[in-house]
Amino acid sequence: MQNFVLYNPTKIIFGKDTAKEIGPETAALGRKILLVYGKSSCKANGIHGQVLPSLTAAGLEIIEHGGVVSNPLLSHVRAGIGLARQHAVQAIVAVGGGSVIDSAKAIAAGTLVDHDVWQFFKAKKSIKKTLPLACVLTLAAAGSEMNGGMVLTNEETRQKFGVGNRLLCPRVSILDPTLTFTVPPDYTAYGAVDAIAHILEFYFTTRDPATPVQDRFMEGLVINIMASCDRVLRDPADYQGRADLMWSATLALNGWTAAGLGMVGFPMHMIEHSLSALYNIAHGAGLSIVMPAWMRHQARLRPGKFSQFGQRVFNLTGSDERCAMAGINRLEEWFVSVNSPTTLSQVGIAAADIPVIAENALALARIWRLNEYGKEVIMEILTACR
Amino acid sequence: MQNFVLYNPTKIIFGKDTAKEIGPETAALGRKILLVYGKSSCKANGIHGQVLPSLTAAGLEIIEHGGVVSNPLLSHVRAGIGLARQHAVQAIVAVGGGSVIDSAKAIAAGTLVDHDVWQFFKAKKSIKKTLPLACVLTLAAAGSEMNGGMVLTNEETRQKFGVGNRLLCPRVSILDPTLTFTVPPDYTAYGAVDAIAHILEFYFTTRDPATPVQDRFMEGLVINIMASCDRVLRDPADYQGRADLMWSATLALNGWTAAGLGMVGFPMHMIEHSLSALYNIAHGAGLSIVMPAWMRHQARLRPGKFSQFGQRVFNLTGSDERCAMAGINRLEEWFVSVNSPTTLSQVGIAAADIPVIAENALALARIWRLNEYGKEVIMEILTACR
Repeated sequence: MQNFVLYNPTKIIFGKDTAKEIGPETAALGRKILLVYGKSSCKANGIHGQVLPSLTAAGLEIIEHGGVVSNPLLSHVRAGIGLARQHAVQAIVAVGGGSVIDSAKAIAAGTLVDHDVWQFFKAKKSIKKTLPLACVLTLAAAGSEMNGGMVLTNEETRQKFGVGNRLLCPRVSILDPTLTFTVPPDYTAYGAVDAIAHILEFYFTTRDPATPVQDRFMEGLVINIMASCDRVLRDPADYQGRADLMWSATLALNGWTAAGLGMVGFPMHMIEHSLSALYNIAHGAGLSIVMPAWMRHQARLRPGKFSQFGQRVFNLTGSDERCAMAGINRLEEWFVSVNSPTTLSQVGIAAADIPVIAENALALARIWRLNEYGKEVIMEILTACR
Repeated sequence: MQNFVLYNPTKIIFGKDTAKEIGPETAALGRKILLVYGKSSCKANGIHGQVLPSLTAAGLEIIEHGGVVSNPLLSHVRAGIGLARQHAVQAIVAVGGGSVIDSAKAIAAGTLVDHDVWQFFKAKKSIKKTLPLACVLTLAAAGSEMNGGMVLTNEETRQKFGVGNRLLCPRVSILDPTLTFTVPPDYTAYGAVDAIAHILEFYFTTRDPATPVQDRFMEGLVINIMASCDRVLRDPADYQGRADLMWSATLALNGWTAAGLGMVGFPMHMIEHSLSALYNIAHGAGLSIVMPAWMRHQARLRPGKFSQFGQRVFNLTGSDERCAMAGINRLEEWFVSVNSPTTLSQVGIAAADIPVIAENALALARIWRLNEYGKEVIMEILTACR
């Protein structure tokens, strides 16, 4: 186990009918708030159900800032910062999934500084203070509700950059699984894939060969994410399944699994970002394409951990090589079973495009200091995704 | 999964040579501190190694309050509160295991109120504020370093009571596994038994039949506690083993495993408290006596969860009844293998004493509202401990 510092001060309120607690929770943070939300799903269930009545009943002054899109945009964040300043809001409330919460984090950090918020993403400025943020989560996927990370796309420069800072941790996040009952099957599956990817990036990229406490935790989460996703695809209103999926997705990226792993990388996300940047495909869909190919590539280099994955997650037995490869096959078969794509051709990306995708990914590999990923390696992995 | 609120603001600094960070961490909390510690082990490795030099180098004014004993005493806490008031200390630093940290928590809460600190334990007063607390952990066992619980013994009334309050969470806890290299084999094993008991109390007493995310997490911890304890009993300076054991013991009782389980009880601790209250035996030693008997008693009532335990922790196969009973046997065999006692007679307690022990336990069962534990049930369990 590697040395680590763990500090996660987000208060989690989890469970049925908890969305209505957003009013009193927010009132403790400020009286004038900016309410950030997305397009369809929030309007449908998140805001007009329990959230807005609760905020209103708490006597809060609400400035609305809707319209966040997936792969959230810098321009929309800048507009939100303008609104927040104009009305001198004291707190931000985000109602939505990772895109909404990330936008709200950027507004919370950008409102209090004189410079443009993108300076944080370019690492030209560091975050020193933020407006307090309260979240109501409506999608089990990104994990942003309980961590200090945010990702934003600058549509002018075509850059999709991320920032991590403890001050970006929400003060409180309300996780009400009933708000995810209406998430359609495809986005339910993509969310599950995203959460599994967060776990496996850590699991397979740690260079520490002995992290048994963290390994068992991560293996258990992968098992439960697959099982709970299966349940809710059969019955979208299966509360138990929605609850297990929602909590597992939060745990996948709240720092608990990573504590003690030392340096980890995000190579699968690195390659996927180029897919969702260049083509209009969902992040989870891109990940289920990239993951099996990346895993097969890596399993040849270090079969031991992949064998452990196959043994413990899929109860496989036999040689390390067999368990490693069969484990990856089983995960890929699960992606197929939940209708998440596993080949580039399924989402209409031609083999001829691979060099361009690889070039784009290479730029990110350099920024993320994934030095072992040269263009040839990325090309090899992408070619295996056809 | 049941609704829950999770909020744990303790900052954890984990790893090799981290004890020296106590100075700067404490300086951020206050300049004048009360340093609380125990008898032997702290003097040997905790304080005079890295802790005291670090506190001194940070320019702190230190008031020493050593001499905490296992099953920490109210009188010693009262003396600490007197010192803290006399010197107007601004923060408390605890260097030790659960007894030291619990004493420090009680001093942190008791210094700021006009009434006697025992009022908190009698639930006559509630904790509204505390002095900030920083800990350096020297024993993997109790979990107090990352939770808001404390247990204290009132030697006048012969009561051993506990209190839970979020304000009792340490601001920062430093977990340096090298500080546990000198823990002798018996207390290493008792600490591991205590941590396993914390996990299994939750695991077996939740009334929610569907907590799969929490179950996998808890099963993984039990597996790792046994494995890491085995390692360090073979080689006390096995860093990896000490690190796994230390982090697992913290995770066993920091609220992460319990989130979503709903109401849980501490029946094994309830019975054990009477053993360590009436006889001078270590808490972990008492637990390894009580646990197998309690588990066999409960497994007859609800074999399903016990079967799952046997299957997943010990890879057993077969009928539910077989897996349940064989799993308990395997755990008991492990207790034997680490020289933790499994019968009352091993620690010199005669069968004739059982009615008196049961009477004492019954009083606690009533306080803890463990209503299904009448005297007959407790007698039956204790009789199986012979």
